[in-house]
Amino acid sequence: MIIVLKENAKEEQLNRLEEKIKEKGLSINKTRGTTKSIWGLVGDTSCLDVEILGASPAVDFVKRIQKPYRDADRKGHPTDTVISLGKDGDLKIGGGNFQVIAGPCSVENWQQLHTIGEGVKTAGATILRGGAFKPRTSPYTFQGLGEEGIKLLSKAKKYLGMPIITEVMDISHIEMFEDVDIIQVGARNMQNYALLKELGHLQKPILLKRGNSSTLLELLQSAEYIMDGGNENVILCERGIRTFETATRNTLDLSAIPLLKSMTHLPVIVDPSHACGVSKLVLPMAMAATISGADGLMIEVHNDPECALCDGLQAINLEEFNNLMKRISEIRPFAYNGR
Amino acid sequence: MIIVLKENAKEEQLNRLEEKIKEKGLSINKTRGTTKSIWGLVGDTSCLDVEILGASPAVDFVKRIQKPYRDADRKGHPTDTVISLGKDGDLKIGGGNFQVIAGPCSVENWQQLHTIGEGVKTAGATILRGGAFKPRTSPYTFQGLGEEGIKLLSKAKKYLGMPIITEVMDISHIEMFEDVDIIQVGARNMQNYALLKELGHLQKPILLKRGNSSTLLELLQSAEYIMDGGNENVILCERGIRTFETATRNTLDLSAIPLLKSMTHLPVIVDPSHACGVSKLVLPMAMAATISGADGLMIEVHNDPECALCDGLQAINLEEFNNLMKRISEIRPFAYNGR
Amino acid sequence: MIIVLKENAKEEQLNRLEEKIKEKGLSINKTRGTTKSIWGLVGDTSCLDVEILGASPAVDFVKRIQKPYRDADRKGHPTDTVISLGKDGDLKIGGGNFQVIAGPCSVENWQQLHTIGEGVKTAGATILRGGAFKPRTSPYTFQGLGEEGIKLLSKAKKYLGMPIITEVMDISHIEMFEDVDIIQVGARNMQNYALLKELGHLQKPILLKRGNSSTLLELLQSAEYIMDGGNENVILCERGIRTFETATRNTLDLSAIPLLKSMTHLPVIVDPSHACGVSKLVLPMAMAATISGADGLMIEVHNDPECALCDGLQAINLEEFNNLMKRISEIRPFAYNGR
Amino acid sequence: MIIVLKENAKEEQLNRLEEKIKEKGLSINKTRGTTKSIWGLVGDTSCLDVEILGASPAVDFVKRIQKPYRDADRKGHPTDTVISLGKDGDLKIGGGNFQVIAGPCSVENWQQLHTIGEGVKTAGATILRGGAFKPRTSPYTFQGLGEEGIKLLSKAKKYLGMPIITEVMDISHIEMFEDVDIIQVGARNMQNYALLKELGHLQKPILLKRGNSSTLLELLQSAEYIMDGGNENVILCERGIRTFETATRNTLDLSAIPLLKSMTHLPVIVDPSHACGVSKLVLPMAMAATISGADGLMIEVHNDPECALCDGLQAINLEEFNNLMKRISEIRPFAYNGR
Repeated sequence: MIIVLKENAKEEQLNRLEEKIKEKGLSINKTRGTTKSIWGLVGDTSCLDVEILGASPAVDFVKRIQKPYRDADRKGHPTDTVISLGKDGDLKIGGGNFQVIAGPCSVENWQQLHTIGEGVKTAGATILRGGAFKPRTSPYTFQGLGEEGIKLLSKAKKYLGMPIITEVMDISHIEMFEDVDIIQVGARNMQNYALLKELGHLQKPILLKRGNSSTLLELLQSAEYIMDGGNENVILCERGIRTFETATRNTLDLSAIPLLKSMTHLPVIVDPSHACGVSKLVLPMAMAATISGADGLMIEVHNDPECALCDGLQAINLEEFNNLMKRISEIRPFAYNGR
Repeated sequence: MIIVLKENAKEEQLNRLEEKIKEKGLSINKTRGTTKSIWGLVGDTSCLDVEILGASPAVDFVKRIQKPYRDADRKGHPTDTVISLGKDGDLKIGGGNFQVIAGPCSVENWQQLHTIGEGVKTAGATILRGGAFKPRTSPYTFQGLGEEGIKLLSKAKKYLGMPIITEVMDISHIEMFEDVDIIQVGARNMQNYALLKELGHLQKPILLKRGNSSTLLELLQSAEYIMDGGNENVILCERGIRTFETATRNTLDLSAIPLLKSMTHLPVIVDPSHACGVSKLVLPMAMAATISGADGLMIEVHNDPECALCDGLQAINLEEFNNLMKRISEIRPFAYNGR
Repeated sequence: MIIVLKENAKEEQLNRLEEKIKEKGLSINKTRGTTKSIWGLVGDTSCLDVEILGASPAVDFVKRIQKPYRDADRKGHPTDTVISLGKDGDLKIGGGNFQVIAGPCSVENWQQLHTIGEGVKTAGATILRGGAFKPRTSPYTFQGLGEEGIKLLSKAKKYLGMPIITEVMDISHIEMFEDVDIIQVGARNMQNYALLKELGHLQKPILLKRGNSSTLLELLQSAEYIMDGGNENVILCERGIRTFETATRNTLDLSAIPLLKSMTHLPVIVDPSHACGVSKLVLPMAMAATISGADGLMIEVHNDPECALCDGLQAINLEEFNNLMKRISEIRPFAYNGR
Repeated sequence: MIIVLKENAKEEQLNRLEEKIKEKGLSINKTRGTTKSIWGLVGDTSCLDVEILGASPAVDFVKRIQKPYRDADRKGHPTDTVISLGKDGDLKIGGGNFQVIAGPCSVENWQQLHTIGEGVKTAGATILRGGAFKPRTSPYTFQGLGEEGIKLLSKAKKYLGMPIITEVMDISHIEMFEDVDIIQVGARNMQNYALLKELGHLQKPILLKRGNSSTLLELLQSAEYIMDGGNENVILCERGIRTFETATRNTLDLSAIPLLKSMTHLPVIVDPSHACGVSKLVLPMAMAATISGADGLMIEVHNDPECALCDGLQAINLEEFNNLMKRISEIRPFAYNGR
């Protein structure tokens, strides 16, 4: 950690600051530049809060050098984390294993879920998604089937032999997720730390979506909340960030894929459906995510998008999904895999 | 609701769309322009989902005319909501009543809370704030005293005779908040709908902070989640939005005050401390918020900002707070009060 | 154009508004909804200013239906614009023709330009880039060689037989660009309308970069300034938009490629170097842009990035560029080409 | 300047980097932390480009300590710059002198300019604004009267005895601005460096608007382009930044006022009309800007906003302006004047 001091810092303030730093067991390496003095702190600064040191009247600013994440850090864990799923754990995400998650935005009924599930499986999807608890901006729109939705997903899991993923919205619902293979934390809950801590006590894979105004550093620190509790099975998901552009719902940030790969060993997947909010952009953005080195995709598919109970605008139909899977498998061998 | 049709829409698609609309009990007023055809829907469209109609291949885009909020709407409730607090309900926020909430970012111990509480009360603050459960970006920084912090706040409430406010982070903690006068929902939880629904079942005032990437419409729709459950005691709080500017932590959006006042009858307060993240900006932004017509302020104060356990950068000390209260009381009579 | 009226609009205000609309030769189709009245304007509204109608006290809001661009519109010009370059006009961009523009950020001297030019040509680049006039945030950093830089580019053009592209910063410099094959308008000048109008009087291809806070609609309207003057040879360039994320200089918006392709017939290329500002991201983002259907790439290459006079952070070296060209040519046959 | 080195930096790379630094006449103060090594550069680093050092493979990142602006810096120039205007130079902006600039968005004709000019003068405005060259997003909307508009402004200047301000869009127009008292650089041209350099050769006051996606540091560096040429008469103008919020055209950033005041000695004024784009927000935001310590305001006023040829949405009428001036003069004595 580097502390840049104010030019007019008083002796007494500097002494007080030095004391506070030494109390933490750190030593200081002092540099006097032409106009500014700089202190470099030597020792483990991971427990030091930038804002606490910054509050000293002697301090101009504080710059953290060490990364603010630890368990997710690629440095101490150079090989990719591989998440195992399925009956025998033979379905894998990460470390070169690419999986496509597909299904409806919301589970509506058995007929719908079954039709879509069979369709996406035939096309090559390996994990079935479907919303049971839906975070909706307005309380007056469809909120999902809740527990009933999870039961239908569970039925589809048996029927189709596919692992299932669905979103959790509250700690009190977690017990309903026993048969769920991957628990999704939505973008709006990326910083719901009480929920993240609780999920850290499970051993189930957690798919953590990037908040729509969260930096990659914040995403990794949210992953850290889960991992610090003991659950290292975290999958990160880029799904677009909020910008001034209104032609798409959010702006898909594909540079996040290679960047995250260099920062962390966790798998990174991409959800182009929610990012763009426009069905015709799903194919090109799924292709772009794949070629950029994503470990998988999450795609919203509906047998009848016009009649979907939510987010019909962004769902593609089964024929389009079939085509998408063909295009993806064509380009997968050429994907970027550096860091 | 207005539907603009695609120029190449097929007869069959239009028929299907018309059917879907009429099923909802709505009638259609059709206009043929030079290049585009437009349908105006007549009837109650509040239950209609823009995205569902937009998914029809015949539709270019859908534009909602009715507001997506109802209970919070100024239109059906022209007079200001006034929230009553304190033993006899004689401490009021809204409708011309201005209150200053002040206290430390985190409750650290009795000595700290007591000193700050007494100081801010003397200076003129009427409500005591203090964090017990703290949402922190990193799991490795101070997370608050939890239940112990609430007990200390409760003790300070009795000792000083001031109503208290503190932040809730999870449904399971709500029962600890019985003695708390205003429950705060932080910016990161503004779209934690499970929590909002639960708070809708209480009768206690809720202070709802704007998410750092939330529009005013989204803020009102989150208020709607609480009000729809039966709890109309919602106070809105502007606390800065995330932008590209890095000189401040967030950008304080003061135009939100008059805008919200025209959209809703709920009280609107401003938190300049979290918005700016820089203590020297707290005074000018508190003054600007007051003159813009805010119903109150929330200010972080610490007896010793250099030693605060969190957010010391943005806390002002008791002397500065005293000065702030003087400046605010000078300008309050001149504040904007239009809509 | 649709006008949604205020519920409390006065007779007199409505009459005045109606008059103003009819003066423009438009007719009005009136719809009365449950709560709001809506007027649909029939006729050519392209000359009508949304803000002028919106200023009437009777108006709630105005929604434009017609697109605010005309010459760039895909609708009246369904086939792709193809730009021809080179001695015999046989180097083409657009309509399925993919070109890679490469070269240094700044032209520094003949030795540097010649080495890089030869290197990128050997690797497969077809157009040579190099900055002569450099828009730099600070007046105290290297501002480019100016006219001398253009002369060196011209020499390289002859020597290597490659068309050249360089950025113009002011109308008064245009006469120096006679031998330049494509004139670049930088992101900071995307809304320098005096310059755009002047470029509209040339017949030379113009590469127009998207401003870092410009929407796609604004980009097309800037293209319209050039096209309206008679110069239809416009190439659009996505180069990242400004967001809150600080891990990259800007956020590359790849959904812009398929979106622009559906809105306009103009070619669309991508500059991953400036978008990310980090050299290691250039390869994956160049691949992602290619697979998304871009008509070309613009890549910053330096023979010795460590010693570049500007933007060394984002330049790749000749070996890396060689590898990039191989990866791009592998995936080009699989690129998305829908709209 | 601080350089944080990569942990795996090679001896040879470090030697090359050290050489490059010493060539610039700087010395290095080396610190070895627990995990990272840090070099502090001692000497004048103002001419060093962060990106050039950052391109070394040995470097993790570079952090500038010295400010990237010099002439605008408050540090070397602690007293406020005061700009003098008017026949005898007795109209002053800055250093405690507050001026209100008012007038129409566009000059339309003598009758309009005269009526508005007389109205705003009577209400207390001291400088007359009016657009002659108008930067409009679309080429198909009113572009201003051009030179004819400047002539009308000049006539109004004589007739009313008020200094005038109008926007310049291109270097070639500057000679028409001889009688103009303050030349305005619009937000879209804040980084038109060729124009800024040219204005640096005049001695006339320049009002420099913040670009809608520009940081305060970038604004000051643009001011530096003008000041470095010898023209120190620069007035800065906050006019809103682009964010995701769509309820206002831009988000007015009032914290910019006290921040700029601490960074620079130049006067800072605020344009609430363009920031919000909604006439009813002009009064509260003008009040908020005044109380925050602005040195002046720029307000769009029209005698008949419904009939304005542009931006009628945000113009207030003469009666509203009169009221605004009364409210402003009431609160001016209480304005914040710290830094």
